[in-house]
Amino acid sequence: MAALHSYVNGDWHVPSDGGMPVHDAVTGEEVARISSAGIDMAAVLDHGRRRGGPALAELTFHQRAALLKSLASYLREHREELYALSARTGATLGDSTFDVDGGIGVLFSYSSKGRRELPNDTVYVEGPVEPLGKGGTFVGQHVCTPLRGVAVQINAFNFPVWGPLEKFAPAFLAGVPSVIKPATQTAYLTHRLVELMVSSGLLPEGSVQLICGGVGDLFDHLTDQDLVSFTGSAATGQRLRTHPVVAANSVRFTVEADSLNCSILGPDTEPGSAEFDLFVKQLVTEMTVKAGQKCTAIRRALVPANRIDDVVAAATARLAKVVVGNPASPEVRMGALASLEQREEVRRSLKALLEAGTLVYGDPERVEVVDADPERGAFLSPLLLRCDDPDQPQPHEVEAFGPVSTVLPYQTTAQAVDLARRGRGSLAGSVVTADTDFAREVVLGAASRHGRMLVLNRHNAQENTGHGSPLPALVHGGPGRAGGGEEMGGVRGVLHHMQRTAVQADPAVLSAITGQWVTGAPRNTGDQHPFRKYLEELRVGDTVVAGPRRVTMEDIEHFAEFTGDTFYAHTDEEAARANPFFDGRVAHGYLVVSFAAGLFVDPDPGPVLANYGLENLRFLTPTYPGDEITVTMTAKQITPRVGAEHGEVRWDVDVTNQDGASVAKYDVLTLVAKRPGEQG
Amino acid sequence: MAALHSYVNGDWHVPSDGGMPVHDAVTGEEVARISSAGIDMAAVLDHGRRRGGPALAELTFHQRAALLKSLASYLREHREELYALSARTGATLGDSTFDVDGGIGVLFSYSSKGRRELPNDTVYVEGPVEPLGKGGTFVGQHVCTPLRGVAVQINAFNFPVWGPLEKFAPAFLAGVPSVIKPATQTAYLTHRLVELMVSSGLLPEGSVQLICGGVGDLFDHLTDQDLVSFTGSAATGQRLRTHPVVAANSVRFTVEADSLNCSILGPDTEPGSAEFDLFVKQLVTEMTVKAGQKCTAIRRALVPANRIDDVVAAATARLAKVVVGNPASPEVRMGALASLEQREEVRRSLKALLEAGTLVYGDPERVEVVDADPERGAFLSPLLLRCDDPDQPQPHEVEAFGPVSTVLPYQTTAQAVDLARRGRGSLAGSVVTADTDFAREVVLGAASRHGRMLVLNRHNAQENTGHGSPLPALVHGGPGRAGGGEEMGGVRGVLHHMQRTAVQADPAVLSAITGQWVTGAPRNTGDQHPFRKYLEELRVGDTVVAGPRRVTMEDIEHFAEFTGDTFYAHTDEEAARANPFFDGRVAHGYLVVSFAAGLFVDPDPGPVLANYGLENLRFLTPTYPGDEITVTMTAKQITPRVGAEHGEVRWDVDVTNQDGASVAKYDVLTLVAKRPGEQG
Repeated sequence: MAALHSYVNGDWHVPSDGGMPVHDAVTGEEVARISSAGIDMAAVLDHGRRRGGPALAELTFHQRAALLKSLASYLREHREELYALSARTGATLGDSTFDVDGGIGVLFSYSSKGRRELPNDTVYVEGPVEPLGKGGTFVGQHVCTPLRGVAVQINAFNFPVWGPLEKFAPAFLAGVPSVIKPATQTAYLTHRLVELMVSSGLLPEGSVQLICGGVGDLFDHLTDQDLVSFTGSAATGQRLRTHPVVAANSVRFTVEADSLNCSILGPDTEPGSAEFDLFVKQLVTEMTVKAGQKCTAIRRALVPANRIDDVVAAATARLAKVVVGNPASPEVRMGALASLEQREEVRRSLKALLEAGTLVYGDPERVEVVDADPERGAFLSPLLLRCDDPDQPQPHEVEAFGPVSTVLPYQTTAQAVDLARRGRGSLAGSVVTADTDFAREVVLGAASRHGRMLVLNRHNAQENTGHGSPLPALVHGGPGRAGGGEEMGGVRGVLHHMQRTAVQADPAVLSAITGQWVTGAPRNTGDQHPFRKYLEELRVGDTVVAGPRRVTMEDIEHFAEFTGDTFYAHTDEEAARANPFFDGRVAHGYLVVSFAAGLFVDPDPGPVLANYGLENLRFLTPTYPGDEITVTMTAKQITPRVGAEHGEVRWDVDVTNQDGASVAKYDVLTLVAKRPGEQG
Repeated sequence: MAALHSYVNGDWHVPSDGGMPVHDAVTGEEVARISSAGIDMAAVLDHGRRRGGPALAELTFHQRAALLKSLASYLREHREELYALSARTGATLGDSTFDVDGGIGVLFSYSSKGRRELPNDTVYVEGPVEPLGKGGTFVGQHVCTPLRGVAVQINAFNFPVWGPLEKFAPAFLAGVPSVIKPATQTAYLTHRLVELMVSSGLLPEGSVQLICGGVGDLFDHLTDQDLVSFTGSAATGQRLRTHPVVAANSVRFTVEADSLNCSILGPDTEPGSAEFDLFVKQLVTEMTVKAGQKCTAIRRALVPANRIDDVVAAATARLAKVVVGNPASPEVRMGALASLEQREEVRRSLKALLEAGTLVYGDPERVEVVDADPERGAFLSPLLLRCDDPDQPQPHEVEAFGPVSTVLPYQTTAQAVDLARRGRGSLAGSVVTADTDFAREVVLGAASRHGRMLVLNRHNAQENTGHGSPLPALVHGGPGRAGGGEEMGGVRGVLHHMQRTAVQADPAVLSAITGQWVTGAPRNTGDQHPFRKYLEELRVGDTVVAGPRRVTMEDIEHFAEFTGDTFYAHTDEEAARANPFFDGRVAHGYLVVSFAAGLFVDPDPGPVLANYGLENLRFLTPTYPGDEITVTMTAKQITPRVGAEHGEVRWDVDVTNQDGASVAKYDVLTLVAKRPGEQG
């Protein structure tokens, strides 16, 4: 059996030794051999930094996002191959789609987030301009730029496709090259994934590398610009996190470790209610999907003390229907663990759990399997425990990383919260209840020890994605035992790979650095109205100043009558005077912005196609009858759309009165055409 | 000399031994003795968690912000006392105001940020609602809740007032109690600060504690809910960060360590230009303020090779005017280092720097001092080095934490960026130039190794706060050598003390948890128009539905004429049809929102005082002549103002057409009166 090649330094590396065998979880046959012998780890990091980083830096966020989308489509076309290999890890087809389609979904999701929430630029500007002096000549703002290092991604065995893609997508979008290191047991599947990624031809060379086998002395070569994202056991995570080079260089280190997640049944749930059934069904699902080898799986089922018998009865009945065996067999609901070693590990943990509770379903030594040899394959029965004393430590401290859960009783809401918190840091928790107050109390009570909390009831029963599923738009990770890390969460996961830098400067220089016009930066009020410029011609700072226009009492009265907005501040002098903010009747805010548009608009057909929105409008000074308003509109941010015939332009609008005071400030959002024929 | 008492467990603790002496930096006299002997460190943490945390949890962000403001005012009244003690640390009056007034300024700033940017609530909702299913029954959002632990704040000796307050303010605002541990050399000043904080009577018991002396076994008792913020040497930071309890519990650990910050003179700057003078002046200021004992001070002055002689000449001339001596003496510009040990430490580092460069100003063994004994006081001359080979390692690696800087030449912009990056992680960098392109290139090139970068030129010369000053609105901290941490940065620093939790639920439950109405949550369309309700009566979800109103061609034509907004999409059928987004003439977006206001407004005087703004407006479907619009307006977020007669109400507005399609969605911001007499 040939050893898996690694993809390093732009080539497929053949290990310099024979490597160690990796076995099929179902048949025990050797699937591949694995070794990283002969890889120059320093050179791997260097290749990422010198080749991958600069290549990614040439691309904007939108261009990287487009590549992620193409990659996702490419992988989707090849997913059958991945499913086939996935079955050898012990996964059922359902498990495989969870892993493979889930991973591809992360790519699609990050592609979409990248295009919608990041600029078509290489710098991300975060947060508002902060005034740092009263005169307006000194301002600050935060910019995020990619770390000029490599994201070393150490993956766990249980999600050989989703795991690497979940780490790769935000790194790539940020502009940071990835070094993917799969776990040994299932490395052959990740290997195929990376083969597909490389052969797609979509990714700039150096933006992704693969190390099959150990990382050798790689950690000795990390710098302050590198990152490590680790998923796996807490013990290994701690050891790596305290590596002297990591500590000395303040290397960003994310740990996502297994945790003792709980699911809590609300006190309102009678047996037979929708929520009772949802709870039991979800518990069994979480125990059996991926044979319970999920760091988000439910390990502790917390139920009202008066419902524990019902829950145990319903769960065991449901578990009895779970067919275990060869995942290739259509009736099989639960496949094998990833390896025989993993099964031994679970059996050891179970012994510790049995010091506190009793087994109410399953036998750790025996399981009926379909279409497979129960000894050569890493099969294990689902195992449900019951522990009537919830203050026993084991259920809150011992994780059996397989199809194992413990049911525990609680008496009061406060106790339910307290027990949930005893996990000392969880990736995920769920509350199954139709009682909104209970849900609120538990979620807010337990939140500071949870990275994600799901409330499940009859209303979201159809659409909910389940306790165990991290989603790209939401953070994945948890405090304490769960590692203290945070991955994904939409743009948050991208920014994790970037350095946030506070920039202080005068407005002109700040604007040059961020690429966005800021108040105080130069304005260009040339002859041509900026609405007459195509996207490529328009420059940040291009400005139209228009007005003044006098706002009369007749205008206000007419506008009130025409729109129906007869609010007293516009129509009743005495009542308006009594208002603490006005000295008499005032113009409608909507009248002011409508007149402002009347002033700044260039009416003839041209590049500006539509006003699609408006943001951050503040009315700052009342407009009284007789006031004269002037509008100054300045191009603030220009976002060409990759592959489209137009882009978005954000304009700063400042409406001032005859005293120069700002009456209203806001951003107008428009779509502006590219020059005909330009769609680059 | 009595030992300093610690403030722990609600009382002033007298050390159980005599403690070790702390000396006046100027006279060498004993100022105080210090010891933490006899303090039960586990009990200190417990007191914070059991007493301080719950007391803070009772307060909203706005209430905590109000306390910070009162505290700032109280401390300002007592600052003369703090100045007097500060002088004994070797600080001039200028140094003391930097430290004391700077610290008080952080309290004011966080108070203001808290009231403006955080809700009047105990939960912070971060980011938008994320749709998680197509049917709208399953949505997600992130909430931040305070960690239920203690913020252990380990401060450096150089800023005995600013340092602790900079860490305390965001922790307090987040709702997390502080344990302040000052550095030994200047602990007597922090001790007085905390005495004032406690005696102010403003802070809930347990929200602040003080440990004078070592922290003993405190680290052994940290949990996943505690945080450590460390400012000091990189070596100590590394040791504490890898403490087994910290690693095992994923304790949030921020390190802010000294770094080899650079200031870069632009190639455009002739001697005699404004920027040249600013550069030299700032360099000397950074060398001498706090006798150069600032972790943000300029250690490396990077100058164009053809300007190095000029810079050295100008800087030495300026340094020659710096009078060193007793800070009590009015002519003194630079006081003493914090201790004799510190002076020895600087002399040792200087030896290493002299392997690469030569001394062009000052003598490390001799300095003329005014009004003090140069041997008993920790006086040291400012020391300027010149190193003509910028590739020598020492200037980029050895930090002399005193009045010491090295001038280095660069040839090209790329080399300037490269040298700046050779600090391998800096808290602050500055660029002094009138050349915007140079500023942009250097800032974006060096940003990923900097926490803060300042561009200084003639335009912001008056208002700029200088290379060395962290500001509460901007992040403070840097990657790599600087510790990889981030403090302050406005609300970012508050959120650092909170756990971010992704909540997944149906809209009704999510709304109950966040306290904000979200799309899909129940609406209350009772008999009473919500504009008739005082702030206390209004509930999230209170809704008015109004309409329909038909929008006619006459309306559009009239609006165009009245406002002057004759954009072709509203006035020219043929041109409108040619627009890729419209099938013919459409109503103005401003017409739609004006008509919507006409529908939802309740005209008579009542609790709603004003519409002060509008946010997140998106026009989603064109409105054609003949369309009928209906508006649904729902109270989304209610923010009472502490001590005011009104509060803010954010309304969700959805304008739909006859087909039920959303035409426009936006948030309307209003001020709503409390019931007369209620200002709580």
